[in-house]
Amino acid sequence: MIKRFDEAYSGKVFIASLPEVTEAKTVLYGMPMDWTVSFRPGSRFGPNRIREVSIGLEEYSPYLDGDLADAAVYDAGDIPLPFGNAPKSLDMIEAFVKDIVKAGKFPLGMGGEHLVTWPIIKAMHDVYGDDFVIIHLDAHTDLRDEYEGEPLSHSTPLKKAANLIGPSNCYSFGIRSGMKEEFEWAREVGYNMHQFEVIEPLKRVLPTLAGKKVYVTIDIDVLDPSAAPGTGTQEIGGISTKELLEAVHAIANADLDIIGADLVEVSPAYDQSDMTAIAAAKILREMMIGFVK
Amino acid sequence: MIKRFDEAYSGKVFIASLPEVTEAKTVLYGMPMDWTVSFRPGSRFGPNRIREVSIGLEEYSPYLDGDLADAAVYDAGDIPLPFGNAPKSLDMIEAFVKDIVKAGKFPLGMGGEHLVTWPIIKAMHDVYGDDFVIIHLDAHTDLRDEYEGEPLSHSTPLKKAANLIGPSNCYSFGIRSGMKEEFEWAREVGYNMHQFEVIEPLKRVLPTLAGKKVYVTIDIDVLDPSAAPGTGTQEIGGISTKELLEAVHAIANADLDIIGADLVEVSPAYDQSDMTAIAAAKILREMMIGFVK
Amino acid sequence: MIKRFDEAYSGKVFIASLPEVTEAKTVLYGMPMDWTVSFRPGSRFGPNRIREVSIGLEEYSPYLDGDLADAAVYDAGDIPLPFGNAPKSLDMIEAFVKDIVKAGKFPLGMGGEHLVTWPIIKAMHDVYGDDFVIIHLDAHTDLRDEYEGEPLSHSTPLKKAANLIGPSNCYSFGIRSGMKEEFEWAREVGYNMHQFEVIEPLKRVLPTLAGKKVYVTIDIDVLDPSAAPGTGTQEIGGISTKELLEAVHAIANADLDIIGADLVEVSPAYDQSDMTAIAAAKILREMMIGFVK
Amino acid sequence: MIKRFDEAYSGKVFIASLPEVTEAKTVLYGMPMDWTVSFRPGSRFGPNRIREVSIGLEEYSPYLDGDLADAAVYDAGDIPLPFGNAPKSLDMIEAFVKDIVKAGKFPLGMGGEHLVTWPIIKAMHDVYGDDFVIIHLDAHTDLRDEYEGEPLSHSTPLKKAANLIGPSNCYSFGIRSGMKEEFEWAREVGYNMHQFEVIEPLKRVLPTLAGKKVYVTIDIDVLDPSAAPGTGTQEIGGISTKELLEAVHAIANADLDIIGADLVEVSPAYDQSDMTAIAAAKILREMMIGFVK
Amino acid sequence: MIKRFDEAYSGKVFIASLPEVTEAKTVLYGMPMDWTVSFRPGSRFGPNRIREVSIGLEEYSPYLDGDLADAAVYDAGDIPLPFGNAPKSLDMIEAFVKDIVKAGKFPLGMGGEHLVTWPIIKAMHDVYGDDFVIIHLDAHTDLRDEYEGEPLSHSTPLKKAANLIGPSNCYSFGIRSGMKEEFEWAREVGYNMHQFEVIEPLKRVLPTLAGKKVYVTIDIDVLDPSAAPGTGTQEIGGISTKELLEAVHAIANADLDIIGADLVEVSPAYDQSDMTAIAAAKILREMMIGFVK
Amino acid sequence: MIKRFDEAYSGKVFIASLPEVTEAKTVLYGMPMDWTVSFRPGSRFGPNRIREVSIGLEEYSPYLDGDLADAAVYDAGDIPLPFGNAPKSLDMIEAFVKDIVKAGKFPLGMGGEHLVTWPIIKAMHDVYGDDFVIIHLDAHTDLRDEYEGEPLSHSTPLKKAANLIGPSNCYSFGIRSGMKEEFEWAREVGYNMHQFEVIEPLKRVLPTLAGKKVYVTIDIDVLDPSAAPGTGTQEIGGISTKELLEAVHAIANADLDIIGADLVEVSPAYDQSDMTAIAAAKILREMMIGFVK
Repeated sequence: MIKRFDEAYSGKVFIASLPEVTEAKTVLYGMPMDWTVSFRPGSRFGPNRIREVSIGLEEYSPYLDGDLADAAVYDAGDIPLPFGNAPKSLDMIEAFVKDIVKAGKFPLGMGGEHLVTWPIIKAMHDVYGDDFVIIHLDAHTDLRDEYEGEPLSHSTPLKKAANLIGPSNCYSFGIRSGMKEEFEWAREVGYNMHQFEVIEPLKRVLPTLAGKKVYVTIDIDVLDPSAAPGTGTQEIGGISTKELLEAVHAIANADLDIIGADLVEVSPAYDQSDMTAIAAAKILREMMIGFVK
Repeated sequence: MIKRFDEAYSGKVFIASLPEVTEAKTVLYGMPMDWTVSFRPGSRFGPNRIREVSIGLEEYSPYLDGDLADAAVYDAGDIPLPFGNAPKSLDMIEAFVKDIVKAGKFPLGMGGEHLVTWPIIKAMHDVYGDDFVIIHLDAHTDLRDEYEGEPLSHSTPLKKAANLIGPSNCYSFGIRSGMKEEFEWAREVGYNMHQFEVIEPLKRVLPTLAGKKVYVTIDIDVLDPSAAPGTGTQEIGGISTKELLEAVHAIANADLDIIGADLVEVSPAYDQSDMTAIAAAKILREMMIGFVK
Repeated sequence: MIKRFDEAYSGKVFIASLPEVTEAKTVLYGMPMDWTVSFRPGSRFGPNRIREVSIGLEEYSPYLDGDLADAAVYDAGDIPLPFGNAPKSLDMIEAFVKDIVKAGKFPLGMGGEHLVTWPIIKAMHDVYGDDFVIIHLDAHTDLRDEYEGEPLSHSTPLKKAANLIGPSNCYSFGIRSGMKEEFEWAREVGYNMHQFEVIEPLKRVLPTLAGKKVYVTIDIDVLDPSAAPGTGTQEIGGISTKELLEAVHAIANADLDIIGADLVEVSPAYDQSDMTAIAAAKILREMMIGFVK
Repeated sequence: MIKRFDEAYSGKVFIASLPEVTEAKTVLYGMPMDWTVSFRPGSRFGPNRIREVSIGLEEYSPYLDGDLADAAVYDAGDIPLPFGNAPKSLDMIEAFVKDIVKAGKFPLGMGGEHLVTWPIIKAMHDVYGDDFVIIHLDAHTDLRDEYEGEPLSHSTPLKKAANLIGPSNCYSFGIRSGMKEEFEWAREVGYNMHQFEVIEPLKRVLPTLAGKKVYVTIDIDVLDPSAAPGTGTQEIGGISTKELLEAVHAIANADLDIIGADLVEVSPAYDQSDMTAIAAAKILREMMIGFVK
Repeated sequence: MIKRFDEAYSGKVFIASLPEVTEAKTVLYGMPMDWTVSFRPGSRFGPNRIREVSIGLEEYSPYLDGDLADAAVYDAGDIPLPFGNAPKSLDMIEAFVKDIVKAGKFPLGMGGEHLVTWPIIKAMHDVYGDDFVIIHLDAHTDLRDEYEGEPLSHSTPLKKAANLIGPSNCYSFGIRSGMKEEFEWAREVGYNMHQFEVIEPLKRVLPTLAGKKVYVTIDIDVLDPSAAPGTGTQEIGGISTKELLEAVHAIANADLDIIGADLVEVSPAYDQSDMTAIAAAKILREMMIGFVK
Repeated sequence: MIKRFDEAYSGKVFIASLPEVTEAKTVLYGMPMDWTVSFRPGSRFGPNRIREVSIGLEEYSPYLDGDLADAAVYDAGDIPLPFGNAPKSLDMIEAFVKDIVKAGKFPLGMGGEHLVTWPIIKAMHDVYGDDFVIIHLDAHTDLRDEYEGEPLSHSTPLKKAANLIGPSNCYSFGIRSGMKEEFEWAREVGYNMHQFEVIEPLKRVLPTLAGKKVYVTIDIDVLDPSAAPGTGTQEIGGISTKELLEAVHAIANADLDIIGADLVEVSPAYDQSDMTAIAAAKILREMMIGFVK
């Protein structure tokens, strides 16, 4: 009988992902949305390029001495978001993530622009209330109220999240770009803003979060542009992939209850070598092996 | 005294454009909008790349034996459209084009996605009523009512235009992609749809339009992808640049009263050689020299 | 319940393909093999890139007034061919194509290098004996006995096919590169070799094949490099996409019993604009709508 | 004993070129100069990229039924021109070409910018006096006296040549860009200027040149940018590679005494697919097989 | 009334620059010259690409807690340098920089090749005599007397400068490529040459310069090629953008009287992701905010 | 007399290499083979691109205070390996390297895929028996017995080498990707596996190897993808070029008898900026100056 060949073989789904959702512990999903970006669009193609290059990955992590099989990942594909319609897109993401959490599985999202994290946080809040914190790795504050009058913008998700779960529950690392007002607001309200560096402040903060529920959101532009050129708004002075791996491992090895995670802003058209998507694929592998218990 | 160097020298404005609007016959303007596209975004960067490569152009056209100086072009720059906000963007375009027409100057627009033509047509209708026809060169019908529920989409501008000025006043050429329903609608209502070819039907149609007011809109994807890879939705089977030049010259030499024109959908990120922007710059030169009396 | 999103939405399978093979008339499959190429490798990534860009296609063909739904395509994915092992790869292809034909479905293959056509022809021969002819569109003769001593080479498939079903059953079009010996052999044995041109000789030949069983193999390098740069061995002086569309339509409209087809040698790494994969996707759409009854 | 491997194998010299100059009929040489260009520099890397991709060529031409071996080519490498020093570079080229001609061999040059043709013409004039004509295929007139005050510019070689051997001995084809003054001068002095088209006027002109000595200079930008994006100043509306092949074959088959030739302005950095260098390599093959008796 | 839209909106001038020079403290200017480079040309397009990508910058620097508005920048555009004519180009640069300094404004130059720094130093010397030092960040010594006989070469500017103001007034950092003779000369004459490293020697040197007038010249190739591939002559083993930011901030925070600065050698054609131009834009922002009092 | 121009001038041979092998101390040779790679092919073009960009190198190393002339390099070109035939390719490499060693010269190889190191080790073993150790810098273990059933695979060379000369004679550094079984095997048999880091373990190991014969093999993917995107299988978390230079210098300055070396896996098609080939060229320069006595 003719049957479909293993999709992981050719990068249609993330490597080593499961054929059925039933036995899965993790649900990987894409959010192909880039309609509110202010500079270079294209991250709608990020999730699929990450899957495509994932076939170059080993399934074993020598860093964590673990295997992708342990994470039991089901790749649900990309949510079919409507072009240019931000409100409806966000609603669809929120609903889908709620379904994942209700099914008792770990939601692992791939952007798309960073605004996609906002409906995920709403879904998390719906389930866990204020009883969780956000670890946020990014080059940008993302703390605007609006961007040129538009409240649904890729510059706003952390502000919305902070307003929902409280600024003191938000921990940002690696931030090196934003408006003066954003930094001032963070200082005033007790938002945990760690500028420029990731590893040092993260290692200081993690023990203080022991036992807590944590959602982790990583913007690929926390990396230096040399390591991640394929993104909408590059910011020099970023961390290396070695440091990002170290950060992910530190989070994985901390005493945390990680309830979900995402990796966003991979935009393949600006990276002829696919360096950014390949980095994202490996970071996702480490998140799968390290974050999912 | 320190003064700014000639901007045309380094591609900040279109080559040979005038320093002041007063003596201008033509106003060139950019519409950096790509938020409703369904496939590859990026045409927001089109107008500026066209200006940049225009410095490689000769100012004289051996085809038309005319010079850019005759068109007396003022390059007004890009309209500062709000990211992701289609309704407001369209309003700004409409208002600006009305200003140009009221000032007695020829409006020559650069897209951006093709939806930008819709507010221009509204502005034209405001001034001229139904007393003009549209010549439309494109690979796509652009005759949808909506795209996945969204009425403001890059797939709809000609439908909106046809509804406003009447389908029999619309002449499309080179069309080779669309939904069955769009082609059927065109046939039923008397929309002048010319499929696949441009030169032959155009030369047949032009004499029938003698003395009429005409607005010309050119989607760069009417060209074959070999000649214009830098566009959102390539469609093979298109015309060559030689044929597009011939079409522009045929329109220029016909007995028409051309009231405005645009060239849209140049998206530089998909064209490492800048072939598409360079083609657009030269087509615009021929439109300036040929269309503006 | 969490279920996978429509894969056609994000280019994981060819647009508009069916979820199950049962109701399918056509089986689309990829052959990611490039280990015998003599110049630039990389066509192993061709099939997947074609699927990815297929989301930019309309499902309706205004050329054939037909729809992808009529072809009822099931996309079986890529055959998991073993890297660098040509003999085993060819065996796997042959076995899979036999399964498709036995199931009464139309086999539509995507290469990979052109050597993949050889096991397909063997499978066809197994079913139909010598009772079929081959229509071959290509820049290259592919009539070598071996390449530097190696009989399994991308330069040999048509020679092997001609030896199996008889040279007079092979019709090549658009050929513009090869060794003197290949052209001489073709002349001597009555191989139907049409050099440089496609449309004119094809239209002459097609009526003579009325009622016959035909297998169609298209090497994307029959196109001019301007239209298909993303291929291993470009040959200038090729046909345009307009001509290739016309050729496919001529074959589709002829009185033939088409028993299978393939499109090979798309190599994405050499084409930053994805022009070649986009051309291949549309040609495949026309083959699906036109060849499958 | 350790010896060097065949250089033609890996593109260090043009494919099938001879190890020693003694038995050569043709001397191929590169002129890596681009210091006077007004738009995009980089053609200094043209000759070497052409050699590199020549390994993808068949040595046999099915168009001319001849073989590279017949042309007996010795590849002398690139003349070591001094960066930025135009006068000295031109002197070195002139001296080297004189040496080739004195040795009774056919000089076949690769640019570099088009100004390199000027010293070649001087060398030819030194040997043949006014007793030869120039066939010039190009998008640009190249008939300026100077460019912004500089008499040694890539915009001037044909003007200098016309002044030396007489305008009526110069035949340009495919010209589609230049200043009004250049076209007027050509008309006034009897320079044979054929605009836009190549094949038709060339076939008209060739019989009138029967028996004459001819030097052929081809600027790769006579091709349409779709076929040759890798050049400094693209001009749309050009000919296809099929037409350029036809032109070269028409010249080869005419009753002419061809005394030398060049192909210039390949600039690899603007062509990620190497389409332009591959086209140039094949055109050079046809020139070798067709021009050298 | 029709008026030009804000040029900073679309990258025609550096973001946040002033409409008029009168109230400016800083004059930014481009020097589009690359005619003397020995390897890959193209830096003539650097200044404009930097402006274009500057629209992705925030105007606020969280490193310096300052804003672009404080620097009051007027972007004068590119000096219209004559192609290929080095002596005249250098004269024009020198004259323009003198005008800026005489007007009491801070000259901030963008290259172009590094030779452009030589006429700037001459202008500075004209105003300040020997009473200033040069801080030079670069991968290359640039201490040749000539390059293959040519004294006006991109390999010579620091030698010329050292001869003018004295080698002990020149401080180079990050140098990792040059001829043996250059390093030896530096040692012999007391030129302050700091090899391989930037931060450590810079922090040692800066206090010794307290109160001095300083001109700062940064060659983008001081960065590692991973962070700045878009430059003519990459040299591995360079510093990261984090280190370059730290160096700029160290200079900004030192007790110096900075009299001018430049950033050179950005060559966009070799950087498909625009990583280099984006890095340059942000470094320029920090120079503006940090260097201009 | 016409003679060939200096090939080093235009990158046909490695810069500063000798015209004849007689006086050479070092023989540089290319192994253009990539037929067993599992992900992205193309390293067959590595050696030639490295030669091409070597013209941008200074011949003097300020790190080692030595000159390329000291290494007396003869560039033998690329071994003409048969496409797709791994066994025969390996035999040809082995034979050629034996010839070099027998001639008393230092063999310095350029890959091609890493499997090419296996026949070199066999040649070394043939001459030196087990009396040498291997220093291996790489991202990958390369310790598989086979890859999907194929024993000749780019994933196996170090396993084969360890089986031949003993695992305790193999020292790997920078390893960050492999199967669990490979790491376990290494631990069990006493293979010297140093994960993630290069400099620190190398500096610990080098003194323990004092006086020993050493073969050095460097896979360019030991570098971080930010520094070497042009390779088949990028692995993030790698070292910088600064660290790789430091490692090469540490080896060069250690008390070792280096008997040969190679640098493999440069694949130019995935690196539009040529960053990887330029890095490889400079590393090779340091290996020449530092390793050859």
